[in-house]
Amino acid sequence: MYLSNYFLPILKNNPSEAQIKSHQLMLRVGMIKQSSSGIYSWLPMGFKIMKKIENIVREEQNKIGAQELLMPTIQSAEIWKESGRYNDYGDEMLRIKDRQGREMLYGPTNEELITEIFRSAIKSYKLLPQLLYHIQWKFRDELRPRFGIMRCREFLMKDAYSFDLNDDDAVLSYNKMFLAYLKTFQRLELSAIPMAADTGPIGGNLSHEFVILAESGESKIFADKRIFDIKTEKYSLTNVSLKNMRNEFEKYYAVTDDKFNNKDFESKVLKNNRLITKGIEVGHIFYFGDKYSKALKASVDLQDGKKTDVKMGSYGIGVSRLVGAIIEAKFNNNIMKWPYSISPFDVAVIPMINKNDDTNLIKAENIYNKLKKNNIDVLLDDTDENISSKLKKFDLIGVPYQIILGKNSEQDLLEFKEIDKEAKQLSINEIIKILTTKKK
Amino acid sequence: MYLSNYFLPILKNNPSEAQIKSHQLMLRVGMIKQSSSGIYSWLPMGFKIMKKIENIVREEQNKIGAQELLMPTIQSAEIWKESGRYNDYGDEMLRIKDRQGREMLYGPTNEELITEIFRSAIKSYKLLPQLLYHIQWKFRDELRPRFGIMRCREFLMKDAYSFDLNDDDAVLSYNKMFLAYLKTFQRLELSAIPMAADTGPIGGNLSHEFVILAESGESKIFADKRIFDIKTEKYSLTNVSLKNMRNEFEKYYAVTDDKFNNKDFESKVLKNNRLITKGIEVGHIFYFGDKYSKALKASVDLQDGKKTDVKMGSYGIGVSRLVGAIIEAKFNNNIMKWPYSISPFDVAVIPMINKNDDTNLIKAENIYNKLKKNNIDVLLDDTDENISSKLKKFDLIGVPYQIILGKNSEQDLLEFKEIDKEAKQLSINEIIKILTTKKK
Repeated sequence: MYLSNYFLPILKNNPSEAQIKSHQLMLRVGMIKQSSSGIYSWLPMGFKIMKKIENIVREEQNKIGAQELLMPTIQSAEIWKESGRYNDYGDEMLRIKDRQGREMLYGPTNEELITEIFRSAIKSYKLLPQLLYHIQWKFRDELRPRFGIMRCREFLMKDAYSFDLNDDDAVLSYNKMFLAYLKTFQRLELSAIPMAADTGPIGGNLSHEFVILAESGESKIFADKRIFDIKTEKYSLTNVSLKNMRNEFEKYYAVTDDKFNNKDFESKVLKNNRLITKGIEVGHIFYFGDKYSKALKASVDLQDGKKTDVKMGSYGIGVSRLVGAIIEAKFNNNIMKWPYSISPFDVAVIPMINKNDDTNLIKAENIYNKLKKNNIDVLLDDTDENISSKLKKFDLIGVPYQIILGKNSEQDLLEFKEIDKEAKQLSINEIIKILTTKKK
Repeated sequence: MYLSNYFLPILKNNPSEAQIKSHQLMLRVGMIKQSSSGIYSWLPMGFKIMKKIENIVREEQNKIGAQELLMPTIQSAEIWKESGRYNDYGDEMLRIKDRQGREMLYGPTNEELITEIFRSAIKSYKLLPQLLYHIQWKFRDELRPRFGIMRCREFLMKDAYSFDLNDDDAVLSYNKMFLAYLKTFQRLELSAIPMAADTGPIGGNLSHEFVILAESGESKIFADKRIFDIKTEKYSLTNVSLKNMRNEFEKYYAVTDDKFNNKDFESKVLKNNRLITKGIEVGHIFYFGDKYSKALKASVDLQDGKKTDVKMGSYGIGVSRLVGAIIEAKFNNNIMKWPYSISPFDVAVIPMINKNDDTNLIKAENIYNKLKKNNIDVLLDDTDENISSKLKKFDLIGVPYQIILGKNSEQDLLEFKEIDKEAKQLSINEIIKILTTKKK
């Protein structure tokens, strides 16, 4: 992509309406545009990053055997009356009347609808377990939307739901998802820690919030800091391994403020290990047994002819919110560096272009074509801005690798720089090798 | 995927509520499930097919340089008041009041919102042309939703918008999109013909509907049948080539009923070439000049310091509707055959499994693993249904290639069958070669 063609409306200054750095950066580099209060359009660069995150989330769901489907955004109120949540939900639910006067709503979550899909399709214990998910826009009519896409009204989530025969099987599903979440956040280069959490209006008694540390976080967390050192690579999808993983995490106190108890904290955590800080919730998993299956009559036939209500869990990841969370974690000292796995481009080519001298631009175009031929996604800054403005701009765009064609690039040795690190002089073939290896 | 694990709730019989074959088949094989009137959930197989279609649409948009972004589903009424369409739109617009009492709506289309995005970002003629698109769910509150996802309320569309400096440039954008549409439908193995169409409430005077022939179609069409023989492979994205392409299509009378004029038809089309039939609209493109840019003040600065309203076009493809349209075109005599490019699986392995004899199942699993290793997406029917029921079921599922492990498979020679064609006896390596070649 040539920058002059790219729909990337960069602002000269930080927008005054934004209080936290993710909101500032996203408006500043034209990743999003507010369309109305708490509702945003995703412009090409923001959209591309979000899609890459979505895809990592999807791949990790597929790896544990979850099957993707898609529920609609607009739901009938009927099924929410069956579960009893239609009145409970309050003003955050966007309630709608259609032209026939029927009560509808924009789904704030999907336990009811997925239970209805399950109950109409699965009648026998033989077809359990089932693990279904979708990635869909939701709407919550926040009283005070703020912080850009971090606390907005229309947002993209991955929601998964598990259906099992009994508690043991259900906990196995829960643990698989627990591991999938750890792997998902690792691929996003985030250290997201599972914290014991309250289940709130979803119900049930087993729940974890996955939280990344950030000053701007809205969740207060209390943890034994050794929980951050757990290595998860050794765990696999077997029942035994997953139990060991859960046990290792349970060893360390780590809770959100709903669950906080000071006596527990002080007795279980040595002073030196105590961490009290703020975090951003990026995922939340719940096990709530038969809460919805009972209300909605989602039962299966057993071998002995009896019926039993299935045991359910639900598992959310805030896909659009992760874009902001990653910025909160990675944007420091006015320099953004996207994790390579979700970077909008693999590399930026930044030529110093002098008036009446297109030598560097031609050289840049040759490099661009060579990179393209090697399947490297490249952004070429072909504008006539001066080089120091360009470099400042690319600090915000956050492409993690740069090829700078200025006074430090000579003939076949190019100035190659990982953002926030020292520059090197490398040949184009060496650069291609580095970028290709990173991609794997 | 093993069929016994796949969330594919197949019905024994055709559902009585469905009148057209796409609606019947989609409910029958568990591709969709109605959640409320005119609103559907997409179950895993339906979802997978729709996603593959979406991706082909996306790739062809990217090839002509269109940039993807994403506008939200919920819009403020404000901008629709600016354009003057808020009152015009009528009851098909789903109107919503949020908790603050603000007038909102579920976007039935996006001319207003994209114009607002454009005008806030692009101020100079130097940054033209712009070609932006998104793939997003829309809602139209149909009075009588029917025919399953063909005429439903919540549906997925690709909407593109072009912004140009003058009419000539705008027609070039229009023609690029025209060619992108022909290529998109070709990849879906559909013969979709551009018909001169009325612009309706979108406005403007240049418009084409892309229509595929089908008994169940709601559009009546009148055409010179020679238009079906035009070869489009020879055309490319240059201005001259695109003009030639448009000229070749203009040679033949082809209109929807809004534009139909019997005198014209009879004078321009020889009796033998006249085709009067029904079709399904799968795409619609419009050029409407400054209709929205004027109302919404989307102008750019010219070289001489003056301003001019940009010239706009809009370009839609019904992504979810295409799933149904393809079934209408390809499902005949109770046999479905998905185009390979969007098939839910590359091949099905269908073993005849006798009680107390798992020879064929073990053989099937070996074949399955070998195919998987070669990146072939395979569905294995590991159920204990009898072979003739299995084959009938697979006629409906529509995976275009089958490996049948029954009496015609011996040792290393397997019964390999393209649906609706003669079976062959081939080795697994020959089969892998055929499937891998098809994928390219």
